[in-house]
Amino acid sequence: MLRTHNCGELRESHIGQKVTLSGWAQAIRDKGGLIWIDIRDRYGITQLLIEDDGNAAAALLETARKVGREFVLQATGEVIERAAKNPNIPTGNIELRLSDLVILNEAQTPPFKIEDETDGGDELRMKYRYLDIRRNPVREKLILRHKIAQEVRRYLSDQDFIEVETPVLIKSTPEGARDFLVPSRMNPGEFYALPQSPQTFKQLLMVGGMDRYFQIVKCFRDEDLRADRQPEFTQIDCEMAFVDREDIINNFEGMMRHLFKMVKNIELPEFPRMEYADAMRDYGSDKPDTRFEMKFVDLNDVAQNKGFKVFDSAEIVLGICAKGCASYTRKQVDELTKWVQRPQIGAKGLVYVKCNEDGSFKSSVDKFYSQDDLKAWAEKAGAEAGDLLLVLSGELDTTRKQMCELRLEMGERLGLRNRQEFSPLWVVNFPMFEKDEETGHYHAMHHPFTSVLPEDAEILKTDRYNARANAYDMVINGVEVGGGSIRIHDKGDQANMFDALGFTPEEAQEQFGFLMNAFEYGAPPHGGIALGFDRLCSLFGGVDSIRDFIAFPKNTSGRDVMIESPSAADAQQLKDLSIQLDIKE
Amino acid sequence: MLRTHNCGELRESHIGQKVTLSGWAQAIRDKGGLIWIDIRDRYGITQLLIEDDGNAAAALLETARKVGREFVLQATGEVIERAAKNPNIPTGNIELRLSDLVILNEAQTPPFKIEDETDGGDELRMKYRYLDIRRNPVREKLILRHKIAQEVRRYLSDQDFIEVETPVLIKSTPEGARDFLVPSRMNPGEFYALPQSPQTFKQLLMVGGMDRYFQIVKCFRDEDLRADRQPEFTQIDCEMAFVDREDIINNFEGMMRHLFKMVKNIELPEFPRMEYADAMRDYGSDKPDTRFEMKFVDLNDVAQNKGFKVFDSAEIVLGICAKGCASYTRKQVDELTKWVQRPQIGAKGLVYVKCNEDGSFKSSVDKFYSQDDLKAWAEKAGAEAGDLLLVLSGELDTTRKQMCELRLEMGERLGLRNRQEFSPLWVVNFPMFEKDEETGHYHAMHHPFTSVLPEDAEILKTDRYNARANAYDMVINGVEVGGGSIRIHDKGDQANMFDALGFTPEEAQEQFGFLMNAFEYGAPPHGGIALGFDRLCSLFGGVDSIRDFIAFPKNTSGRDVMIESPSAADAQQLKDLSIQLDIKE
Repeated sequence: MLRTHNCGELRESHIGQKVTLSGWAQAIRDKGGLIWIDIRDRYGITQLLIEDDGNAAAALLETARKVGREFVLQATGEVIERAAKNPNIPTGNIELRLSDLVILNEAQTPPFKIEDETDGGDELRMKYRYLDIRRNPVREKLILRHKIAQEVRRYLSDQDFIEVETPVLIKSTPEGARDFLVPSRMNPGEFYALPQSPQTFKQLLMVGGMDRYFQIVKCFRDEDLRADRQPEFTQIDCEMAFVDREDIINNFEGMMRHLFKMVKNIELPEFPRMEYADAMRDYGSDKPDTRFEMKFVDLNDVAQNKGFKVFDSAEIVLGICAKGCASYTRKQVDELTKWVQRPQIGAKGLVYVKCNEDGSFKSSVDKFYSQDDLKAWAEKAGAEAGDLLLVLSGELDTTRKQMCELRLEMGERLGLRNRQEFSPLWVVNFPMFEKDEETGHYHAMHHPFTSVLPEDAEILKTDRYNARANAYDMVINGVEVGGGSIRIHDKGDQANMFDALGFTPEEAQEQFGFLMNAFEYGAPPHGGIALGFDRLCSLFGGVDSIRDFIAFPKNTSGRDVMIESPSAADAQQLKDLSIQLDIKE
Repeated sequence: MLRTHNCGELRESHIGQKVTLSGWAQAIRDKGGLIWIDIRDRYGITQLLIEDDGNAAAALLETARKVGREFVLQATGEVIERAAKNPNIPTGNIELRLSDLVILNEAQTPPFKIEDETDGGDELRMKYRYLDIRRNPVREKLILRHKIAQEVRRYLSDQDFIEVETPVLIKSTPEGARDFLVPSRMNPGEFYALPQSPQTFKQLLMVGGMDRYFQIVKCFRDEDLRADRQPEFTQIDCEMAFVDREDIINNFEGMMRHLFKMVKNIELPEFPRMEYADAMRDYGSDKPDTRFEMKFVDLNDVAQNKGFKVFDSAEIVLGICAKGCASYTRKQVDELTKWVQRPQIGAKGLVYVKCNEDGSFKSSVDKFYSQDDLKAWAEKAGAEAGDLLLVLSGELDTTRKQMCELRLEMGERLGLRNRQEFSPLWVVNFPMFEKDEETGHYHAMHHPFTSVLPEDAEILKTDRYNARANAYDMVINGVEVGGGSIRIHDKGDQANMFDALGFTPEEAQEQFGFLMNAFEYGAPPHGGIALGFDRLCSLFGGVDSIRDFIAFPKNTSGRDVMIESPSAADAQQLKDLSIQLDIKE
């Protein structure tokens, strides 16, 4: 190799040795008689010393003076004890007195600082992603991702799971509106689709007797990208045969505990279970952040029918108790009111009740409610002297969503959402279907292969859109880390499911005939889970954005600004693929 | 779980225990008073016993008599010692006397036998791939693949390699004729391409200081599929910074030795090196099967200018010595002659010389050559009494190709190509360029990012198309397992390369500007290798075809006959993607 050691490993024990390092010039200080260069690679930084003591070869000095930031160097010399030690870096007790220095490659001045704190904006860093990756915070995130993937594979392999690669060129599905299509040159007029998940393939592997399958796999979804979505993303995809829900839950709770132990040295508690209906009632979300309480309180019985029309006409009056916030100033409350009125939240207004230290109450609706009324609210919400009650009202679903946002915001402001603290849980018993209010159609809340909760089997027959699914989500810190279900393994049940979703039998057969046929040849009971790997990595990394855990991410327009993709195709290529452009001017 | 044990783990030590198994009915024998069912899962087979001794519940018997092949069962009972033990299976000393039997799912009669030897043809097995996977030989190949992948990841991670996922939606390249394109909905008229390899991304990771990268990654090539190619295939893709060729070779020779040791318990010898030119001269191939010698012998000086026009007018007269084949009958020789004359080989004829036991020679060209002439051939070819010399002649490249095929065929016939014997080597010093005889254009023999062999740096300046590349292939048993090179890391060198390949500077910039720009910001010397994972698995499995090492392969038309893909897209989808069909009737 072009080095004997890397830039992070030399210690006092190496003093006296002649070594060669290779890496990038991080910093150069030329003090006339002495030149120091910090040389950096993935493993660390080492200080190089070039002494102009009359003995140093003129060529060495000349070379050293040419070195600029991010030049690629090969430096040979003797490890010596450092005069001014740097306790902040592992190599800080030594430096390398150079006898030879080779410039392996030159570098232009980088467009932003290659340091932990950089001056580069997002787009610039994306365009020069290869330079951004040189920065510790980005590189370390990619290395963390690698470690997590390794541990996932280790854990699952030890549990007899087999990693099987499923195809990337598959068939378009009815959720096809979000499919990426790939024209087939050999089959003119026909298209592959890129998988949104390997769902049907993993089920076929269960029919095929693989028993336990997993895959860390790229999936694709062609949808308008919200801030933190990517058109290609990675899943930890798993499936087991001959299991019921407890088996899946135990196994993957075990995996998550293993990961936290191995990667972060954190012992997670046993994951509590929460019913979907309870999660919606208490947190207004199917992925509640349970690092803090601040549960919703239904104030209907104490707040309605007192003459305040806003509340009286509301489907729900919901409160949360912000501990110790009674001291909020008028300005703070006004700011919070504006916050909930932003279009993203959309609340009409915010009612507050301050629980004063003297036992009195001050609210924004004092003229409708007596002190006793407000006391009843406070008691219902468990609010004590010094607390602030925040109240929203309106239509049930909307108010829950708004209150969920407000609760998370208050949790953030109160410092209750510590990124180094982890609160996992399982949310279970999801509805099987959800109604699209615009079209009136029903969708499968999890996916069309999800079986009914055993105790709701009768409901599925009599009142199917009210049946609950045998589905479960793993939630940590308000993030849906993964979700899964026990699957349908009976052809008739699967046909009923497609019927409930509005498919004709012919449509179902055309799209999923291969799966329903497979169910005729001895399909075992099976179930599984898929975990969002990018999001899991960001959770481990303690940051909100997934972008830096992806080596080469795309922007919100689905563009890779580094390689300038997507791009125009040439005419011959399109002709070969039997397609042409159809662009409206 | 729906079982306490799997179908492969019960032994005599379990006798007396009450257990539950789940699996598929492999075989049913009903002898009136006794019913046996073999129950199978991924882990093995266990015999179930239902006794009609008057005590067995009627319901149990009734259930057992309903069971057909491939029914999914849950069987509970007591482990007992088996009367007629079966030493061929690990569970052969016990059986399960059932107290309860549940049919978890029924099954139609499968379209082919779910046994090691099946009666299903290729297309049928592909259509019902989920049933084929139930067969041991197929499932074991997928499990072998998993094990090899695990060991690759373990080895490389232990060597500080980081697995980084590179994008699947990338930019079309000049070798674009083979790119799969993906229309971008968000960027009308523009296309992503699926990667033929992550080549440029791994190089950018080296520029980004990742130092050591690997990835087991899907790649895509839209080309007419020869018998054993797949449009999507998997590579073990690796790259290292600050290395020269010896570092790559040592590291990946080490990896391959590790894999053979861990997966097959075989200690591979040190891999010899062979110059590309020598491989072509001695074996007519850049991936020689070195399990056996039978090297080519250049007979020009002893065979030409003796009046045999065919040889006199040939660029080359090549012989190989088939040991002990002098006893070949006239019929055998004729058959071999027909074999080399098949269109796939295309030789005009085959000359033979039998080295008789009495020291005389018998050849098909006796009228042109004396016994002394033939003796000279035999001596040159190292042929001894009892051997058969086979001779082809003609244009150099063509004759080498033909002789290569004949050599492999003779090796096969002589039993010299044992699939459990492994002969690895490195082929090095490939030409940098190869000329397309049709167009007169030069292509990069490895790829356009390959650096010149250091000792040919001057040749690259003065006579560039004759320079050799710093490239290397790992070859085992005549299979190119992988190939790589030390890359160009200098912008000027890269620009020269594109110039040599016929790119204008503008074309080079448009296609690879991001890489050449990256080279301006401190690119380290680097190199790497990519190994074909599907092929590697088949090599480990001791079979020629890669198809059974892929869970859901496509046929030679690029079709997945199980899911019936590719398929037509609906009009709205195409409209959303701003494309329309352009099909010639």
